[in-house]
This record gives sequence, C-alpha cells and structure tokens, in this order.
Amino acid sequence: MRGVIMNAPGDVVVAERPDPVIVEPTDAIIRLTATCICGSDLWPYRGTEHADHAPMGHEYVGVVEEVGADVTTVKPGDFVVGSFVASDNTCEICRAGYQSRCVHNVMMGGIGTQAEKARIPLADGTLVATPGQPDADLIPSLLAASDVLGTGWFAAVAAEAGPGKTVVVVGDGAVGLMGVLAAKQLGAERVIAMSRHADRQALAREFGATDIVEERGDAGVAKVKELTGGLGAHSVIEAVGTQESLLQAIRSARPGGHVGFVGVAHDGVTLPADELFFAEVHLLGGPAPVRRFLPELIRLIWDREIDPGRVFDLTLPLDRAAEGYDAMDRRTATKVLLTF
Amino acid sequence: MRGVIMNAPGDVVVAERPDPVIVEPTDAIIRLTATCICGSDLWPYRGTEHADHAPMGHEYVGVVEEVGADVTTVKPGDFVVGSFVASDNTCEICRAGYQSRCVHNVMMGGIGTQAEKARIPLADGTLVATPGQPDADLIPSLLAASDVLGTGWFAAVAAEAGPGKTVVVVGDGAVGLMGVLAAKQLGAERVIAMSRHADRQALAREFGATDIVEERGDAGVAKVKELTGGLGAHSVIEAVGTQESLLQAIRSARPGGHVGFVGVAHDGVTLPADELFFAEVHLLGGPAPVRRFLPELIRLIWDREIDPGRVFDLTLPLDRAAEGYDAMDRRTATKVLLTF
Repeated sequence: MRGVIMNAPGDVVVAERPDPVIVEPTDAIIRLTATCICGSDLWPYRGTEHADHAPMGHEYVGVVEEVGADVTTVKPGDFVVGSFVASDNTCEICRAGYQSRCVHNVMMGGIGTQAEKARIPLADGTLVATPGQPDADLIPSLLAASDVLGTGWFAAVAAEAGPGKTVVVVGDGAVGLMGVLAAKQLGAERVIAMSRHADRQALAREFGATDIVEERGDAGVAKVKELTGGLGAHSVIEAVGTQESLLQAIRSARPGGHVGFVGVAHDGVTLPADELFFAEVHLLGGPAPVRRFLPELIRLIWDREIDPGRVFDLTLPLDRAAEGYDAMDRRTATKVLLTF
Repeated sequence: MRGVIMNAPGDVVVAERPDPVIVEPTDAIIRLTATCICGSDLWPYRGTEHADHAPMGHEYVGVVEEVGADVTTVKPGDFVVGSFVASDNTCEICRAGYQSRCVHNVMMGGIGTQAEKARIPLADGTLVATPGQPDADLIPSLLAASDVLGTGWFAAVAAEAGPGKTVVVVGDGAVGLMGVLAAKQLGAERVIAMSRHADRQALAREFGATDIVEERGDAGVAKVKELTGGLGAHSVIEAVGTQESLLQAIRSARPGGHVGFVGVAHDGVTLPADELFFAEVHLLGGPAPVRRFLPELIRLIWDREIDPGRVFDLTLPLDRAAEGYDAMDRRTATKVLLTF
C-alpha cells in the first residue's frame, strides 16, 4: 500500500509500505476513506521533534476490511471513526472517560494512518461505526471527529463551556476553531476568539464566535478583562501549547474559572506555581479522550447539526501529501484533508 | 491592646497596639476569644518573606463588640467565626464560591489578628455567627474553621474527595491533617496520609487515614501506585507547596483524577507544562474560599461531628506567642493556639 513517510524534518514522501495484517485478535484492518495532516505533524516536520523515516498520521475514517477473532462490535463493510489513541474502553480509566490514557492505550501516530490501510488495535474499544455509509459530504466532518474536533470538544468540556458562560479561545488553528464550534454547541453565551487572521476570524464567526480579539499576551488578557466586567472569562480553551499562550489562557480566566488546555506543551514550557496558586483556576488538559465523545459527535454530524469539516481548507490526493505539509507549515492552509 | 508584632525574621514580640476602630460602615470590631499561629507565619519568621514590625495573624474567633452603621447580619455580643480573607460575599466571584478572591477581598494578615481585638472589614460578608455562645471545648475547633480546617476542606473539595474515592494527602502539617479529616468526612473510601512522623501519623489515623506512606518523592508515588492497582489515586491533596511536593501530588493522581493544592507555592517553584499535559489531571488550588464552607463547618463542629481542634498541640497565652513561633519553627508543635 501507499503511505506517507517522513524521512527527516522537512522531507515528506509517499512510499510503498507493507499492507497491515491482523496481529492481535482484537485488531481490525480498515481501508481509509480519508485522512489528514495534524498541526502536531508539523513538529517533526520543523525539526522540533525527531523524524527518521517515520510513517505519519493518526487521524482516520474508513471501511472495515477484516477483523480479528475477538472483535465483536464492528464487521467488514462498516464505516468507522476512531480516536487518535486506541483504547480498550473497558479499563477503569476508560470507564471514567479518559480513554486517551487507557491502561492499554496505543498511539495511532506510531501506526501511521496517512496511508491506504491501517491496523486498528483494540478495535472494539476504539472504533465507532456510523449508522450507515455516509454521504460524501459528511466524510470531512467525520474525519474531523477523529482528533481535531474531538480535541476541541474536550477542551470546551474541560473548560466547562455551557449556558451562561463566556468562553475565550486562545489559538485560531484548527483545534482552536473546533473549540469555538464546541463552545457554541455546548450552549456558551459568548465565545471570544483570539485571532489576528481575517480568514480564521471569519471561520470562527461561522462556528459561533461572538467576539474577536486581535491582541495577544497581556494586551489580549486586558481586552478579555474589559469584555468581562474586569473579572475574566468563565471558561478558557488553550489550543497552542506555548509558554505565552498558556499564561495568556490562565490570566484570561476569572478566579474559580476553568481552563481546558489541549495545545501540546513542549519541553521547557513551565508554569510558575505561585501564579497558578493565586489565579485559582481549574486546569485540565492533555491528549483528548476523543473516544468518550465519538458517539455524540457522530450523531451531531450525521444529523447535520454541526459541520466541523469546514475546518479543512485544502484537499489533496494522498500522493501530494508533501504539498499539504508545506502548505500547513507556511500557514497557507489551516488543515489539509488527504483523499484516495 | 496587646498584639503580636514581628520586628524582623525570628524576632516576635507582644506589644501595645492601638485599639481598632470602625473605619468603614461595613466594619465590625471583635474581641478575640482565641487566635493561632499559621504555618505561613513561619515564612517571614524564617526570612523567606519580608518582615518589618508587622502585626501578625489572620485566624480568629471572638465576640462582636461594635458594628458599623451598615452591618446587619451580626450584632454586639454575637460569637463569630470568619475567614482569613474578608469578602463581601455578594460579588459575582463570591457567589460562585470563590470568596477568597472576592473583588473587594481584604487579607486579614494585613490587619493582624494575633491581638486582643481586630477590625473585620465587610463584616456582613465575612463573619458567621454561631448558634449561641460556644462551650469552651468548642473554641479550638471553631478557630480551626477560620483557616486551617477551611483550607484542608477546600483542598479535599477541590480534589473531589468523596464516596468510593481513594484520597492521598501530601503533607502532614496542620493543613494536611485537616485534609485527612475533610476527606474522611466527605465520604472517601480510603485516605492515604504521607507522613514519617509517628505523632502526626497517629493524629492522621484518628482523623480518618486508612493508610500511612512514609516514602517521599518518586518512592512515595510508587507506593501510592502500588496501593491503587497501578493507577494512582482519584484525589490528591497537596498541602506543602514545594516543587517536590507538587510533583509528587500530580504524579500520585490517576489520569482524570483531581489534585487540590493549598500549600502556598513560593517564587521559583515551577511546573513543567508537558508533564501537566500528559498527567491529564484536574488541578485546582489557591487561597481557600473558607467563607463558602463556614456555615457547614460550624454546624459540624457545633453538633460535635468533627473535632478539628485536636490539631492544636500547644496552647499558650498571647503574651508567650514568641514561644509558639519557636515551637512551630522547630517542629515541636504542629499548631499553636493563643489564648487571652
């Protein structure tokens, strides 16, 4: 099969890879209908993380081709969506809703789903079948559920976005935009998107942003305070992962408020404990337990209540994946869909 | 009146101070029945914080002597308990339960309640009257509610201690011990106290600890994991405030678990954001909004359902306050009650 390989930072190719086979009786093999490039794929691309002939990709939707002997909840022919983390969905951590930290979790990035086929471990716990074969226009949205929507949704839930709440979203990348959509869908009264890019501002407004703030850092915090009677927001979604964005998020929340952070923080980013103490905000972040939300997200997409697929602003065939990486690296695309 | 003054680090005296007077119409003047020394008073005592002829103390119970023209909920003769932070209890932050961050908050440490009398700002919002004049044996427990119990209680609530939960308490000082009591009272199934001092272990067991772990740091974390099926605790109370204790607390919690941190973190203590991200725990800490809990705490004490006053292991007259500071500094006392 064909699949994306990152030979080294900045060097992405589509190469022949071995067809996946059932390894464990709990595995399934899927044929991908679509996959995509994640903002986190840019870290190795930019050399922030190691890359040495690595199969790439962790987002996926597709049709089940084969299942292992122990798989009972999906069968060949089913159209399925899964999280970027495979999970058994039965352990104590999964049952508490933290499937991304399942005691048997498998990071799909290690498998590489920017490919024609993929082995999905723990298929019963990981995959959710759609009610039937989806219309073509639903594919991007279902794919978004696999990570970018699920991650933005988790951030909004962690930030306790809901009726009567003012929600600030720090970061106007794909995850931040999905955070806007999630906050709106969860009933937030006001959604303040922090963005200085006209195209992303427009998309944020479409997804439900009521206010746009262009200022960053402490100036952004001051603007949020001004918009919230001096108190700060009830809920803040952090979708960047830098020192500046994390502090901006914490400082934008009112005492007793909630910060959901899903921008992956890198080595060297630290939070001053005394500031955290006196901020007195709830903090929750981490790899999103997308599996918790998949049934609801699939229903909302299936019923056309949300249209997260609009976050993809460039679609390319898999063979042109390198162009997609380049476009996201240069920020000429927010998020790239890869088709077959 | 007589009151404690810290002239400089290590130099505590009891000196004549001006009698407090009503300054604002929302003030009350109380005559203290008892006060005490807080672990945080040791920071200036040890030179970690600045001290220059500062009136000391922020914990208090006593009898109202005089009220300002606008005070309606307490009257002369009432026995009252208040938080270490005065609050209006009506602003949006107070109504959300974060009275320690009231938009009009006044830190009582700036007023100095280790004295015969004290001015209590925002008396209606700050003071809670007991159902009548308390029996003498209830005084220590009512005083504890003012900070050390209220702080331990907040930590347990922030850590979501409750039925079916395993709660770890990092720190065996007075606040940690109150955290043990709170976790037990909130219905925790198992309370693991981290302590290597026999006397504090004994008190922790009296307050409801089911397990004692003597190991610290990563060895302590490993022991907690061993006691929790490899997963970590549902709830962790952090009551120290050092880098080591904060990391120990975070590492002791399972993914999706809750950490309530009330040990005041000092300059230079930092948390690595990537570790916070991958720990995927809920974090909430800060100055405890004691006022939120006071009515319930007073009821529990009044009905003799809890006996937090046992945390005081040395009682001295105010005039011998210096001995109390010395005892707490040398750890020969856990917490010192001062009487009149």
